[in-house]
Amino acid sequence: MGQYYMLMDKVSAEQIPGIADILAARRRINSDIRSTPVLSEPLLNDLLGCELWLKCENLQRTGAFKFRGASNAIARLGEIGLDGDVATHSSGNHGAALALAATSHKRHCWIVMPTNSVKPKIEAVRRNGGEIVFCKPTQQDRENGLAELVTRGCIPIPPYDHVDIICGQGTATVELAEQCRDLDIVLTPVGGGGLISGSAIAARALIPSVAVIGAEPAGAADTAFSLQQGKRVEQFPIETIADGLRAIVGVLNFKIIQENVDKVLTVSETGITDAMALVWRHFRMLIEPSSATVIAAIVEHRDVFEGRRVGAIISGGNVDLEQLPFKP
Amino acid sequence: MGQYYMLMDKVSAEQIPGIADILAARRRINSDIRSTPVLSEPLLNDLLGCELWLKCENLQRTGAFKFRGASNAIARLGEIGLDGDVATHSSGNHGAALALAATSHKRHCWIVMPTNSVKPKIEAVRRNGGEIVFCKPTQQDRENGLAELVTRGCIPIPPYDHVDIICGQGTATVELAEQCRDLDIVLTPVGGGGLISGSAIAARALIPSVAVIGAEPAGAADTAFSLQQGKRVEQFPIETIADGLRAIVGVLNFKIIQENVDKVLTVSETGITDAMALVWRHFRMLIEPSSATVIAAIVEHRDVFEGRRVGAIISGGNVDLEQLPFKP
Repeated sequence: MGQYYMLMDKVSAEQIPGIADILAARRRINSDIRSTPVLSEPLLNDLLGCELWLKCENLQRTGAFKFRGASNAIARLGEIGLDGDVATHSSGNHGAALALAATSHKRHCWIVMPTNSVKPKIEAVRRNGGEIVFCKPTQQDRENGLAELVTRGCIPIPPYDHVDIICGQGTATVELAEQCRDLDIVLTPVGGGGLISGSAIAARALIPSVAVIGAEPAGAADTAFSLQQGKRVEQFPIETIADGLRAIVGVLNFKIIQENVDKVLTVSETGITDAMALVWRHFRMLIEPSSATVIAAIVEHRDVFEGRRVGAIISGGNVDLEQLPFKP
Repeated sequence: MGQYYMLMDKVSAEQIPGIADILAARRRINSDIRSTPVLSEPLLNDLLGCELWLKCENLQRTGAFKFRGASNAIARLGEIGLDGDVATHSSGNHGAALALAATSHKRHCWIVMPTNSVKPKIEAVRRNGGEIVFCKPTQQDRENGLAELVTRGCIPIPPYDHVDIICGQGTATVELAEQCRDLDIVLTPVGGGGLISGSAIAARALIPSVAVIGAEPAGAADTAFSLQQGKRVEQFPIETIADGLRAIVGVLNFKIIQENVDKVLTVSETGITDAMALVWRHFRMLIEPSSATVIAAIVEHRDVFEGRRVGAIISGGNVDLEQLPFKP
């Protein structure tokens, strides 16, 4: 985490945040973000055997919850008086989110993107005001590209392993707790761990006796495996359609998950695509595979959710319309 | 309208309803329907030159505002003590909406559908508990199919030309007026006229000095033409991608439109498909071509909306994913 900006005034970048930090994040970003709706469908509830409430971050600006964390990080830079351009490397939702968050705060934003990035993602970054630096499609080239921008004075903004990002992501669950009372379970996807770690802190503080559960593709189950091992693994063979969840869980994120998350359930690839179809049929929303893991978790671990009130965070809606992985 | 049930207790089926009737409809259906979200996007507002608020009836149960009117009609039957099965003919959203509304109130529902109906629409009716009677794909065969069901004792529920349907549809604008203050313009698509007539009555009563504007495809502009002629035309050559707007405006609907709607703007077919792309890019929502007419109207009649606060009803989200008419 050393390459990222450190915050000395209130919480250090490596310290576990509390609910006060998440509520502060909410005040900070509230006029930038969309307060997303919570939807439920009785027919689907009958099918799933639980009372399910979807917190629709697929309808967040930039099409993903990532805009919350990015907005909080950018606003914090202003508060602590750190001027200058920001930068990140991303082939996905974090890049588009950071671009819009920076532009909204009149900051220039550079996104290092691999040359094989899909056109809609490139267009999203540009529409949101970001400037793209293309690199070869390897992790090393991405990091080199970002390192060069940092050398030139840019402030690097990480996708998940940072207290400001975590606090921003946690605001979705603050809203959920207000929109939907007495939840038994809060359920989110697990990738790098930004969403679930912020959600867990918020849920524990705001919802009495809630269980916090994560959903992870079996083909990217590094967090479930790390929990089982009792320590964070740094390597895991990743193979999943859920492109947003291919990251290894972050250091700070894992620490928070270990202390605050009840369990992380794994789901199958067909479970994910079937869940996308289910949400399309019952809500007329296209959700990305990463988001569909939460519905797949309910289908594939029915006993965990049976008869409970479940608030599930639908993390994003950035699907490739030309390559939908399910039959409508 | 003679074939439809008449209501003698409060308003006759042919009488123009008032805001009290729409508020009564809202109390009647409030626990069945979803209170749909209102979304706005600053980047799109900049592009369009107005402050646009989308009332997302694409996220209504059954994927369209039609569920409001159907729910109100079904609940009214119960109130006036009319027992028995209900029926309609439909190849679109009204059928699925009526099926769910009826089933929710433990009534059997028959939908006459042409044999060439697309599979997702057939599945939607069945998923919602409706029983399908297939007929040859002509208007005459549809009407004959329904007539036979009525002979057997079914109560026919019309898609738009009925006071209960109109009052149900008007509830979307009651919510909109609460969710979004001080609108200058309420904008809705115009097909059979159920949505715009209910919306106009609600908007006039609840929003001071609002203008109510309709959007109609140039290829189905019977309402705009009828307004120009000063009387409702019964024939109009219909050719548009907006399958939900291919109907000729209803008798009662036209009467209300004449008295309460400021103008009906026409839009082009490319305007419609471009607007679908615009909404996908900025909101990650797929909206059906009928709904996209409202965005197309803003683009193609920019001077009408410039600088105004516009509440636009996105009527539905039932698109065919396998035949999207725009490039993402």
